[in-house]
Amino acid sequence: MLPTYPPRSIWPAAEGALEIIDQRWLPHEYRTEQLTTLAETTRAIEEMRVRGAPLIGVTAAYGLYLALREAPSRANYLQHLAMAAAMLKATRPTAINLAWAVDRMVNALTALSPDILTHQDSFVQKARELADEMAEADVATCRAIGEHGYKILEALHKQHPDRPVQMLTHCNAGGLGCVAYGTATAPLYLSAERGLPVHVWVDETRPRNQGALTAFELKRIGIPHTYIVDNAGGLLMQRGQVDVVIVGADRVSLGGDVANKIGTYLKALAAKDNQVPFYVALPASTFDPKLKDAFAEIPIEERHPDEVNYAYGINELGKASRVLLTPEGTKVSNPGFDITPARLITGLLTERGTCPAKESAVRALYPEFA
Amino acid sequence: MLPTYPPRSIWPAAEGALEIIDQRWLPHEYRTEQLTTLAETTRAIEEMRVRGAPLIGVTAAYGLYLALREAPSRANYLQHLAMAAAMLKATRPTAINLAWAVDRMVNALTALSPDILTHQDSFVQKARELADEMAEADVATCRAIGEHGYKILEALHKQHPDRPVQMLTHCNAGGLGCVAYGTATAPLYLSAERGLPVHVWVDETRPRNQGALTAFELKRIGIPHTYIVDNAGGLLMQRGQVDVVIVGADRVSLGGDVANKIGTYLKALAAKDNQVPFYVALPASTFDPKLKDAFAEIPIEERHPDEVNYAYGINELGKASRVLLTPEGTKVSNPGFDITPARLITGLLTERGTCPAKESAVRALYPEFA
Repeated sequence: MLPTYPPRSIWPAAEGALEIIDQRWLPHEYRTEQLTTLAETTRAIEEMRVRGAPLIGVTAAYGLYLALREAPSRANYLQHLAMAAAMLKATRPTAINLAWAVDRMVNALTALSPDILTHQDSFVQKARELADEMAEADVATCRAIGEHGYKILEALHKQHPDRPVQMLTHCNAGGLGCVAYGTATAPLYLSAERGLPVHVWVDETRPRNQGALTAFELKRIGIPHTYIVDNAGGLLMQRGQVDVVIVGADRVSLGGDVANKIGTYLKALAAKDNQVPFYVALPASTFDPKLKDAFAEIPIEERHPDEVNYAYGINELGKASRVLLTPEGTKVSNPGFDITPARLITGLLTERGTCPAKESAVRALYPEFA
Repeated sequence: MLPTYPPRSIWPAAEGALEIIDQRWLPHEYRTEQLTTLAETTRAIEEMRVRGAPLIGVTAAYGLYLALREAPSRANYLQHLAMAAAMLKATRPTAINLAWAVDRMVNALTALSPDILTHQDSFVQKARELADEMAEADVATCRAIGEHGYKILEALHKQHPDRPVQMLTHCNAGGLGCVAYGTATAPLYLSAERGLPVHVWVDETRPRNQGALTAFELKRIGIPHTYIVDNAGGLLMQRGQVDVVIVGADRVSLGGDVANKIGTYLKALAAKDNQVPFYVALPASTFDPKLKDAFAEIPIEERHPDEVNYAYGINELGKASRVLLTPEGTKVSNPGFDITPARLITGLLTERGTCPAKESAVRALYPEFA
């Protein structure tokens, strides 16, 4: 049995299936669904039923296991694995964790002895073990990020012991986007456990309003928070109402340039302009050691215009619904990410500790990045 | 007869009445309505059927004319005028232009010779003439802002003659908020007239999505445009897809600090970081010569949380509707404005020309600010 705390975003179901929260219905409805096939898994990632770089990675790892389970007997399992890997990688282009998790699974499985490779049952079982390990590693990694981030919040509280620490976050780099704890939110779980008073300014994060997921998550763990439009954070920093910004990341160069949800860059600029410390929380898997120039090389996903033309929520009859915001036929651009340059970042908050957004510092923490 | 171009936001109707666009239905429906009485006028302002500081001022001026027209014969017309002025000023107490326009009308009418004051017809006619003059002055002021702004766009086009000039704007500082042309949009009307190719990135401007009004307005005059969420502008500037930012203003100190719609500051930071020129368009009446410290003295209006908790639009049955975005009971903060410091502003774009955001330069253009 899995522990009930912290709440998980993907967990085992009966008959070897996996269960996920269909996050498209959050924060209004908590719906779960089972993943039993590769097709269900690619759809879940593509349609953002699961979302958040680490959760996508773990879900894709389970997708490989499900693909192998479906393979016809006497299939060429390695060929089948390669096909499934390609399909999973094609679902979302920007986050590095997806490719990282898939490659890691493929490499580990390909390295198995020929004996196992020709026995479907053992091969499938091995794939499941590897995916389970990846899920548990994600939980441990996020908890470690939380420990290091907690120290930052604790130090800020010592500066102003008379009031809660004021943190601002963008999007949902939360437990909902990981297996548990999240990255940017992990320090908040530890603050809740240990009674450190923190209040969070939650950016709405148009167009998909993942701030509502963060509000849902913070309500679940009992952290006081206030929801604001993406336009408001600059004013709050001007007024001295933000002590620290912590966000997640989708892909980070060793030099510390950060691709994250669109709008992150604007908050980093405001933080710099107002001397507010700005941290990016990430696990090792979010680094892209091959990346030379984040601005030139990271593909920025252009998402569907309906996300911008419409707002999705609950109508006055209590039904999930959408309303058209723009004049009929309005052209929309909907880039999903922007790049926050290292010079705006106070520190990278990793499972191995906090370090400056500089290549030498990152390499010192992660000597394995050759 | 008024010219049909540019489209106006208030214009004469039959039998001395005025006609307005009921802007609550924009951008989805173009509904007009007549103002024939003081009561209809105060309601139109209160309920934001008309919006935008300059348009509210002119509408209130016509409201005084309508009030005098309704006065019983042998009334004390000056007393009647004072009562109407008080009622109009109470509709939107925060809008500076409203009080400015009403006071100007009252002062001009009070200064008339006793002969006119006792003859209702001549008094009403004089009020109408003054209101018409105010409306025409607004059009001329905005057109002059447009001429000076056009030079900026024209110079940018010479730098890149092979493609349209790429302008970004925030909120609706448009013809819909003035009698015609608008402030930030005025250069676009002149570009449309003269065939200068311009493409506009239209910020959505949560929470009230006035970007949809800007999209409506640009569609009407045939300026190509693309609607984006407020988070996207930073990325566009990083990519070199923005040549210039032009926004409006609600209140500007002589030192050039600008109070404008929430989120303006974030775009100014991004413009500065990417060497994109950032202009603030405003008429003389938006300067506040009494203001010493914009950050300390300008009260930032905290607006209703429903604007953030809900999105308003057209539902799938074609009806005006709203959807709840946030988890039930989510606490919201909804400040309406932020302050963009002068150091981030390339120039103030006024009816007298463009000048640096510096007190000496503003005083040189407006020697009357003693």
